[in-house]
Amino acid sequence: MKKASSSTQDSKLLFRLAYDYIMIRIERGELEAHDKLPSIRLLAQDLKIHRLTVFRAYQLLKQNEKVYVKEKSGYYVSPINPKEAIPGHTDISPQTSSSYLKNALAEIQQIPVTYQLSQSLIDPNLLPNLYLSEYVKKVFDIYPKLMGTYSSVQGDEELREFLSRYLVRNHNLQLTENDLLITTGGQQAIDLISRVYIKPMDYILVERPTYSAALDMFRQQGARFLTVDIYPSGYDLEKVEMLMKQYRPRIFYMNPTFHNPTGYTVPAAQRKQLVELAERYRCLLIEDDAIHEMYFDQPPPQPFFSYDTDGWVVYLRSFSKYISPGLRICAVIGRQSVIKPLIIAKSLADNGTPLVNQKIFLHYFESERMKQHLDKLRIALQIRKEIVEEELSATGWTWDSPKGGFNLWLKLPEALPVEAFLNESIRQSVSFIPGIICDPLREMRSWIRLSYSFVNEGQLRDGARRLADIAQRF
Amino acid sequence: MKKASSSTQDSKLLFRLAYDYIMIRIERGELEAHDKLPSIRLLAQDLKIHRLTVFRAYQLLKQNEKVYVKEKSGYYVSPINPKEAIPGHTDISPQTSSSYLKNALAEIQQIPVTYQLSQSLIDPNLLPNLYLSEYVKKVFDIYPKLMGTYSSVQGDEELREFLSRYLVRNHNLQLTENDLLITTGGQQAIDLISRVYIKPMDYILVERPTYSAALDMFRQQGARFLTVDIYPSGYDLEKVEMLMKQYRPRIFYMNPTFHNPTGYTVPAAQRKQLVELAERYRCLLIEDDAIHEMYFDQPPPQPFFSYDTDGWVVYLRSFSKYISPGLRICAVIGRQSVIKPLIIAKSLADNGTPLVNQKIFLHYFESERMKQHLDKLRIALQIRKEIVEEELSATGWTWDSPKGGFNLWLKLPEALPVEAFLNESIRQSVSFIPGIICDPLREMRSWIRLSYSFVNEGQLRDGARRLADIAQRF
Repeated sequence: MKKASSSTQDSKLLFRLAYDYIMIRIERGELEAHDKLPSIRLLAQDLKIHRLTVFRAYQLLKQNEKVYVKEKSGYYVSPINPKEAIPGHTDISPQTSSSYLKNALAEIQQIPVTYQLSQSLIDPNLLPNLYLSEYVKKVFDIYPKLMGTYSSVQGDEELREFLSRYLVRNHNLQLTENDLLITTGGQQAIDLISRVYIKPMDYILVERPTYSAALDMFRQQGARFLTVDIYPSGYDLEKVEMLMKQYRPRIFYMNPTFHNPTGYTVPAAQRKQLVELAERYRCLLIEDDAIHEMYFDQPPPQPFFSYDTDGWVVYLRSFSKYISPGLRICAVIGRQSVIKPLIIAKSLADNGTPLVNQKIFLHYFESERMKQHLDKLRIALQIRKEIVEEELSATGWTWDSPKGGFNLWLKLPEALPVEAFLNESIRQSVSFIPGIICDPLREMRSWIRLSYSFVNEGQLRDGARRLADIAQRF
Repeated sequence: MKKASSSTQDSKLLFRLAYDYIMIRIERGELEAHDKLPSIRLLAQDLKIHRLTVFRAYQLLKQNEKVYVKEKSGYYVSPINPKEAIPGHTDISPQTSSSYLKNALAEIQQIPVTYQLSQSLIDPNLLPNLYLSEYVKKVFDIYPKLMGTYSSVQGDEELREFLSRYLVRNHNLQLTENDLLITTGGQQAIDLISRVYIKPMDYILVERPTYSAALDMFRQQGARFLTVDIYPSGYDLEKVEMLMKQYRPRIFYMNPTFHNPTGYTVPAAQRKQLVELAERYRCLLIEDDAIHEMYFDQPPPQPFFSYDTDGWVVYLRSFSKYISPGLRICAVIGRQSVIKPLIIAKSLADNGTPLVNQKIFLHYFESERMKQHLDKLRIALQIRKEIVEEELSATGWTWDSPKGGFNLWLKLPEALPVEAFLNESIRQSVSFIPGIICDPLREMRSWIRLSYSFVNEGQLRDGARRLADIAQRF
């Protein structure tokens, strides 16, 4: 055997071997709870790898709570975590941790309550339903064989052309229809990216707090998380650089414009700097931009993607969320080097988003009514936000008033027990999302997300008032 | 450490460790072309696993052409296979072999020719386009807020109820709407199944020939293939049992009704026996049934799923293919133990198929016109099949006349060079699919698939005649 080369990629493989060596023996039951692991020296010798590699593998096992350390003795197998013993189809079940978190969010949203403040979606009554139905009929007159036709894998060319012109005009971007891929909603876009760009044990950077369903998708690919706090002023870029330098994460998943759950927006100056960092450390930025147009007084800064020259940004621009969420149309935008592998993944995943949905969306989106609809929506959302803020003004809770989006991110007094508060609220028919669900580290116990987008003004006022009352009695 | 238990699953993990140990060193360049591998005895000792496990890993490395054997000397690293050195985004490209095959099929289909006999799809002129547009308008009158509404992850309840009743009525099945999951086309169904049920290095059984895009999806998950020939009379069940017994494949992907590409249908007697084998050897049968209703004289046998009591069949029933392929509606049917993990995977993949598509499909599918449409389609397809058979009757080619479906699977004389024949045919504006693309073993050089479903009767007659002429001149 020749001497090992020392690139990061190589040592990662050996690292995985050491990690697997132990994990496999734990899974087989050869190593049971409280059994001692082989010494680092011994395993390094057996596997013919460096001791530091074994050490790093043991550290990760510890971090993942698979093993624990006894001072001056060594590493021992942890008792089985009861949270991981999940019922179901035992030997052929999918990765299970994901279902847990997922359910946390979805379960709360599915509880039928009068004051639904947990849904970060637009009130269906604000959507242009009737107009849309008219457009649908028109579309079928234009394309009588629409139902019998498959879309190309990349997406309908007419739609991609229109959207690329739209983005060029609005953001002064350089791109053509070849740089877009149409997916069935933003969720599918994140899933495709995960599958193409994340391998098991890869580090990825995520915001804290963040959109928990995205974490589920990354976790499904076996990713390990590094977190970067998001503030009203953006990120701590020194920390971002430190993490990129030290861990070489493959991607940074970000939602920098009217961020979910906080509503914060990363300022323009940071955007340029971050793209430079991404280039330097070869970290792909996933810019999830689902509600760009939902600003109140002035448009948000230009997307990160507008600073990308070298193919280190994948721009996820959802359009359907504030027009017709039921259509599920998202555009994935990037340089050819990032888009091409995603098109292959899309071809394997479903061979193309249904053409019907793309054509209906296109014809409404390019209409004059579209602009009016957006203007109306912005005003309606701003009014709703102000209603909640007014009702909560006497609570002593603190928040940063968002400049767009659907949510308030509220800091409650430390003394208020959020879980009990949520239970009592639901009993009184108001629901919201406890911040801990959005925190990859599961620590943000005093925060909650309150969505003002889903219910009408009257309900919003009553619901917020009711919440304030309930809190006061704690 | 305690003594290892001896279950198949366990030894599979150790097997993977040994395989990885060598592969990682090859990837790193520590073991280069023509280097000798460690002896089986030595590696078994280092990894603390059984010699037979190392032996099996070496055998697989050999089978995958990663290493070769020198008689009485040992195992050596193979020179790099030029086929595997693929251009693209080098360090973050997805599994690449898949794109190759995929392209083979898609590339031929995308060549613009007058006589398109490579598309296994229904002639758009035979679809109920005008009626469908009428139904769409109706649907939007019934559900004015349809565009603003998300489907549940599992699929619209009204649609699932209707389809489960339809299946109960037609196939005497026992099932409820809870046993169905709606996906965006059959392709997504196969993809979800791959992700949930296939782990890297798992063996899976596939038919030979088969649908090449499915192989791509399985390959993406790192599956290894075992093949079972399909004949006009079905499978060689002794061989199936032997393979199940020896390799314990996790799944058997089958397309047993008007099989693509052959058009063969597995007889009823074999269906029951195969479900028993699947139960005995714990192998999940994936029954892909995309064109069940496209029979000519009499309906095909009941699905495999109708014999399933224990949850060893996943039944993929596409409906939209012969009504409105553009809508992309497929039902995945199975016992709760298999459906539940798939619902979780669906929630991560795209959070539910667009509701619009489900409602449009439902309202057409439950109409009286639907039955008339199917009756008409069956006759039209049968006529087209007969036209091709007539035109090819003097060629000396042989085939088994299908009892339904879209394709003829033709055996050409050994002396006819298929690749040159295809090139010349395309030059003369006729396309078909060479059988080798459909063969996981890449050996069926004398076969071709000819689709009679996509072009009209006149074109079909001319195209087939032209093919016969071209062949004769070789």
